[in-house]
Amino acid sequence: MKKSFIRPSILPGFMELLPKEQRIFDDIASKILDVYERNGCFPIDTPVIEKSEVLLVKSGGETEKQVYAFQKGKNNLALRFDLTVPFARYVAQHLNELEFPFKRYQLGKVYRGERNQRGRYREFYQLDIDVINKDKLSVDNDAWVISLASKAFKEISLPTYKFQISNRKILSGVFDYLNIENSLQVMNLIDKFDKVMPDEFNRELIDLIGEEKSDFINKIMSFSGAPNQIVNELKKLDINDIYREGVEELARVIKILDILKVDKKEYDINLKIIRGLDYYTGTVFETKLIGYESYGSICSGGRYDNLAENYTDTILPGVGISIGLTRLFFVLQEIGFIDSYNLSTENDYLIIPVGDTIEYCSIVLDKLLKKGYRASIYFEEASLKKKMKYADNLGIQNVVIIGEEEVINKKVKIKNMVSGKEDIVEIEN
Amino acid sequence: MKKSFIRPSILPGFMELLPKEQRIFDDIASKILDVYERNGCFPIDTPVIEKSEVLLVKSGGETEKQVYAFQKGKNNLALRFDLTVPFARYVAQHLNELEFPFKRYQLGKVYRGERNQRGRYREFYQLDIDVINKDKLSVDNDAWVISLASKAFKEISLPTYKFQISNRKILSGVFDYLNIENSLQVMNLIDKFDKVMPDEFNRELIDLIGEEKSDFINKIMSFSGAPNQIVNELKKLDINDIYREGVEELARVIKILDILKVDKKEYDINLKIIRGLDYYTGTVFETKLIGYESYGSICSGGRYDNLAENYTDTILPGVGISIGLTRLFFVLQEIGFIDSYNLSTENDYLIIPVGDTIEYCSIVLDKLLKKGYRASIYFEEASLKKKMKYADNLGIQNVVIIGEEEVINKKVKIKNMVSGKEDIVEIEN
Repeated sequence: MKKSFIRPSILPGFMELLPKEQRIFDDIASKILDVYERNGCFPIDTPVIEKSEVLLVKSGGETEKQVYAFQKGKNNLALRFDLTVPFARYVAQHLNELEFPFKRYQLGKVYRGERNQRGRYREFYQLDIDVINKDKLSVDNDAWVISLASKAFKEISLPTYKFQISNRKILSGVFDYLNIENSLQVMNLIDKFDKVMPDEFNRELIDLIGEEKSDFINKIMSFSGAPNQIVNELKKLDINDIYREGVEELARVIKILDILKVDKKEYDINLKIIRGLDYYTGTVFETKLIGYESYGSICSGGRYDNLAENYTDTILPGVGISIGLTRLFFVLQEIGFIDSYNLSTENDYLIIPVGDTIEYCSIVLDKLLKKGYRASIYFEEASLKKKMKYADNLGIQNVVIIGEEEVINKKVKIKNMVSGKEDIVEIEN
Repeated sequence: MKKSFIRPSILPGFMELLPKEQRIFDDIASKILDVYERNGCFPIDTPVIEKSEVLLVKSGGETEKQVYAFQKGKNNLALRFDLTVPFARYVAQHLNELEFPFKRYQLGKVYRGERNQRGRYREFYQLDIDVINKDKLSVDNDAWVISLASKAFKEISLPTYKFQISNRKILSGVFDYLNIENSLQVMNLIDKFDKVMPDEFNRELIDLIGEEKSDFINKIMSFSGAPNQIVNELKKLDINDIYREGVEELARVIKILDILKVDKKEYDINLKIIRGLDYYTGTVFETKLIGYESYGSICSGGRYDNLAENYTDTILPGVGISIGLTRLFFVLQEIGFIDSYNLSTENDYLIIPVGDTIEYCSIVLDKLLKKGYRASIYFEEASLKKKMKYADNLGIQNVVIIGEEEVINKKVKIKNMVSGKEDIVEIEN
């Protein structure tokens, strides 16, 4: 009887890479993590599964529908849908064991049962930094987290990107000033600015607040030019306290970005940036790849006044930035960046024994590893041709062939698979 | 009205570390991963959630009860309970896109709803290597994966450990020879050898197969001494084909371990090692920390003849080794290894501005980062004393104090928090 097999497959909306792509994914992740680590952030790791009552304390509607929630025994469980809510829980739980200001970084998978569509994943990596303090946190940190993302992007030679920066207090101040009562609906509309046609946006805005107020808001949102110019324009409108606070914070962020060597070409002020209606209260930002804006933001974040308010009465203001690493990788595949990613293989070696020379192969292996090279022995029986092809297919740049003759002469033959060049080298070298 | 809070807490059986411990955990993981990478393994990453029909194809009874399984929409889902079953699925699914022999490494969280007890986690990291080939795989790989674990353990300066190595074909051959019909039950009993008293073990064994056969099996299992001695003893008993094959494979593994520079002190032959009744067919091994054997194996694995038989008719023999990283970390905490773990902080810097010197601080930050040091600026307003204490509590070894005087003189004051020594240094240095 023929055996029946289960078709080997994964769920839709889950990313799985081949080893060659995975090495690039890991290389990108580790370069970014290294930047965060070297800049003084501390790693944390939290469970993927948490108590539903803890994870879903704040959310409702859309988020709740997307969450992977289930029961195990008597417990209601949920998979984390971001790294921010677990971070809030972590800080509240370990309040007396942490040093403040606390700077964390975290890489982890999160889960959202989104509609299945290209570039939207149900399991994806987020890579977050947050700085959090008790009572008060300097706005300089808002600029600092952006500067770390900037360093990370340079480290991986990301194609041209632009941070889009705003401060939500500015529009909040304007809304107060204009006596806009349905401000949540207006915020919601502005948040979707990129996704609708300008005409449609204007029509909807007028529907919500009338023509006069729409004109005023449109005027403010359309200030353009260099960041300092926009800030100067904003300063001329002395609207109210909350507005002034927003403008001053924005001005300070720009100043510190400059001091922290973030180039003016790397960012724009864009007052249309809202970042949803959730916890952000001050600085907000997203990041677009220039020429590929339609893929959406690859790195976003902002300032929150009180992260853990559902878990503790300690006031914990913070600022965070999150890279959607799985989505970023997808976009980088789409635009050809991954295909041309330079994963250095010049120090990759495959040692091929011909005949019973394994002892000698082990000596060579040791020498190569001690030099910091990447090396392994081909143990299987196969033709030399097949072994060479194996190295070639894996992108291993150097092949060391060790036959009995080589053992006697204490020499090895090294073939460079890229140049095709062959060298006979003393084993000592 | 007083606000009510959700108690910030995680589920029992989940490990969560403070940042200081997390850095050590990450350091251990990255050192091991680096050994695997440099020795020519390739990374893969698979989803945490898979289709139930795929993950649970082979398991039954105990495993199935422990699995986190749930529904989402119409799909039956399960969280992976190891990295081996997903690897089998991965290889079968990507059969035509992989190069064989394929050497993978993978670090990931797995889930088992075990009874809650100290040192047993419901979410834990596994760190696996496997080598897999089509049709046939040289037994030299069995020694090679052990040699990589050995290198990894040396890299993290693990306290004295011992690999316990066997080959299941040896006992299988003996069982055949003795005409033991209830061999599964006997294997099961031997698998639990460590967990019962010797007397009880003997009584149960005699109950199962009678005194004569028990004596014979006990005799073989009690061969002791150096690996070569045991192999020589085993060779004298020329029992049958399967037995001879097992002894020859074991002899070859020992020979290659020697060639690959695994010290004889690092391993024992122990024929009582079975590794459960699942997929292993030849070489099997576990690893005990000497003096702390009761904590169980920290690194186990073995040879399987046909990994992906439920997904494909391609024969895929392989050998794998798995470190239970979460459990290992727990054990290392218990025995004081983590407390004395030397995470080098001599190049950790905190830059403290006194007055409005942030611009100058940024210049110093840049210089320190370019030297490869770990450095950040303290942005908050606080007393100098509080700032110093912050550095001290975080284990940051050097503090750079930059006041307005330092800016004028183009000098900085560096205080070593360990020695208490203060230096005034030109900014250029």
